[in-house]
Amino acid sequence: MSNAPASAAKSSVREQARAARAAARKLALLSNEARNSLLLGVARRTEQNAAKILAANAEDCRAAEGFVKNGELSQAAFARLRVTENTIREMVMRLEEVARLEDPIGKRLATTELDDGLILYKESCPLGVVAVIFESRPDVVPQVSGLAVKSGNAVLLKGGAEAVRTNEALVALWRETLRESGIAPEAAVTLLQSRADVMELLQLKREVDLIVPRGGREFVEHISANSRVPVLGHGEGICHVYVDRAADLAKAEAIALDAKTQYPAACNSAETLLVHADVAAKFLPGLAKKLKEASVELRGDERTREILRGVDVVKATEADWATEYSDLILAIRIVDSLDAALDHIAEFGSLHTEAIITEDAAAAQRFLNEVDAAGAYHNVSTRFADGYRYGFGSEVGISNSKLHARGPMGMEGLTTYKYKLVGNGQVVGTYARGERVLRARKIE
Amino acid sequence: MSNAPASAAKSSVREQARAARAAARKLALLSNEARNSLLLGVARRTEQNAAKILAANAEDCRAAEGFVKNGELSQAAFARLRVTENTIREMVMRLEEVARLEDPIGKRLATTELDDGLILYKESCPLGVVAVIFESRPDVVPQVSGLAVKSGNAVLLKGGAEAVRTNEALVALWRETLRESGIAPEAAVTLLQSRADVMELLQLKREVDLIVPRGGREFVEHISANSRVPVLGHGEGICHVYVDRAADLAKAEAIALDAKTQYPAACNSAETLLVHADVAAKFLPGLAKKLKEASVELRGDERTREILRGVDVVKATEADWATEYSDLILAIRIVDSLDAALDHIAEFGSLHTEAIITEDAAAAQRFLNEVDAAGAYHNVSTRFADGYRYGFGSEVGISNSKLHARGPMGMEGLTTYKYKLVGNGQVVGTYARGERVLRARKIE
Repeated sequence: MSNAPASAAKSSVREQARAARAAARKLALLSNEARNSLLLGVARRTEQNAAKILAANAEDCRAAEGFVKNGELSQAAFARLRVTENTIREMVMRLEEVARLEDPIGKRLATTELDDGLILYKESCPLGVVAVIFESRPDVVPQVSGLAVKSGNAVLLKGGAEAVRTNEALVALWRETLRESGIAPEAAVTLLQSRADVMELLQLKREVDLIVPRGGREFVEHISANSRVPVLGHGEGICHVYVDRAADLAKAEAIALDAKTQYPAACNSAETLLVHADVAAKFLPGLAKKLKEASVELRGDERTREILRGVDVVKATEADWATEYSDLILAIRIVDSLDAALDHIAEFGSLHTEAIITEDAAAAQRFLNEVDAAGAYHNVSTRFADGYRYGFGSEVGISNSKLHARGPMGMEGLTTYKYKLVGNGQVVGTYARGERVLRARKIE
Repeated sequence: MSNAPASAAKSSVREQARAARAAARKLALLSNEARNSLLLGVARRTEQNAAKILAANAEDCRAAEGFVKNGELSQAAFARLRVTENTIREMVMRLEEVARLEDPIGKRLATTELDDGLILYKESCPLGVVAVIFESRPDVVPQVSGLAVKSGNAVLLKGGAEAVRTNEALVALWRETLRESGIAPEAAVTLLQSRADVMELLQLKREVDLIVPRGGREFVEHISANSRVPVLGHGEGICHVYVDRAADLAKAEAIALDAKTQYPAACNSAETLLVHADVAAKFLPGLAKKLKEASVELRGDERTREILRGVDVVKATEADWATEYSDLILAIRIVDSLDAALDHIAEFGSLHTEAIITEDAAAAQRFLNEVDAAGAYHNVSTRFADGYRYGFGSEVGISNSKLHARGPMGMEGLTTYKYKLVGNGQVVGTYARGERVLRARKIE
């Protein structure tokens, strides 16, 4: 693909990251109101510059048509590239929504008295500098920048070459707003230019606190394997819907259809349907018909194929249970118990989102407690796993790490905490010699 | 060093990790009372088996004398290896203390209503399988096992070869207690045997959720660089004490002495003293005398050496500001302002623990807010950075990562969370088609 046009005098990624670090130190000291004023300023500027953004995007789209023709860009990626007036309205709305959220910084998470006049406070604070590497979708720019600035972080953005004009137009709104406000340096929101920048970025252990890669599994694994900076990304989404023996089969059908077909490319779509043997014969034929009508390819175990004789069901192999199709393909397996369903998920799940459909409260409770996933759902579609739907205003990404941030990642994933210890001259020697005793007493 | 005696039929690390995973699934379902009963059972068994533990340790110590002689083991490591009756009393006390702490599992961290009858719960849960790699100190076994089991996690322990008999005796107490209780498999607490096991462990991305290396910086970096499993360890502890212009100089002296000399090998000891120019001439001569009496080698910038003419102060180089001495050496630098102190720490600090000594509340507030470290201290020694002192009962380690767990790491660092979404048949299609609107409303 073409190189990005140089929109600014080039400086090295390290220099840009250092400038971002300095900007982050300023941002972290701003009041919630001041940070909100930046988000709302960008929201206004986005509305005022809609024509400019659409024009930049039209140019990107024109250029991208060539990449689609020669196979460098998928049709799906091309679709995600396009910005419409509706996209712009949504960008504005999400910035306003994030501005309305409560301040994630300076929250007192715990207070402990260690001794008379020796108080330990645990308080939330920004991470510092966060880098997000993403493809195609330009609406990542306002979403991620809004969450980052609201939580007192500077952000380094690296988008795909195919969206470079749109991304530049969107980042310009932030830099203009920052410049005019004078309350934090422009470097708080920085767009990295070239693919080579990413390789340099991965080495900046001292300058960057977190890298979030958004993209396919191989891309995320490549970044993780090569980064000296901590990485939080989502790898696979192998999500299951388990239809229990006590399921309301109408709900189960609607949920299975939604989880598979509503947006099959999404990581929170279902890949495998587990059905309790007691209801399989009653449930599967009707569902299979509707899935086929929705052009879903079916793969099943022996018992499924037996029940669905006459329907075209490919024989599922071990590999099917372990595959994220991201497509209109569904694997179906019949299980003899809730335990068998939990065992299957423990073996093949990707810790993303798992759903049970049942009217049996005890079974639901067991499933929610025992399944190891970022999302454990009862009687709802796996497709709800999304930061916006969870009320985070936007999302930085979805993490299927168990550490730090799990599942849809909003502002909290961009914060850490520090312990503030306040005393009046205490030294450890006093306690080591037994002259006084530390007795931690939780106050909050 | 000698190979560990085979205390159990050998199985591969992967098999042991899988058994630990299965044990973790059981542990996670136990009530707080049941988990506490395991800790208290081990505490009783520790007391009853004190003689056995001391005998195993005496054997380890005898063998280790040889390693000290041929230079394979440092005197400091040898000292940490020894278990006394006092150590055993402390092991028992810490287990009892952790048992008394509130249950870290199943805590409701947030509740959000996404729509009528669609409720999102964020709840704490165990990580699963945690591996801890440590050296010499056998008291890590009860500390880490106690925190892990209390928080519903299985633990894989890999100690140094020099402590193998002691570690085996201590792990046996857990396995006997687990076996007799019958409430969770013995594999919940497993001791890995050989150094080769560690290399295998680092590949077990699917079986192990977190590795905590405890040891020197190079060791931790080696583990981090080679692990496919997430690693949380502490690298360097370059801690600063900043004596502000408005410091109470008596407090400052006591704190500087404690932070440097109370236990210089600890990561939370101070390495650099920053002194405001306005008080340096008054403060430094008296302090230098006491530091010299405590055998501390001094390294200073030009202005420090000027003030301390007549005292032996080595000229500090840039490298001194960036070095964790872990020894009786202190670097001293004179700064002209709080800002200069903050800039120095931003450049050379290791995000561990930083202290300001001042009677100026505004300066203290700025320092606590602006310094980027796990611990930001006002008028207390950096040596307080410790899980036990913080009231965590014990510590798994100290993290100077900003992600997941920061600073002394107790049970919370061994937990993650999951989102439970409970509905009655909701599908995303309804909302995507605009038939209903999601309106996240925070309830708790």
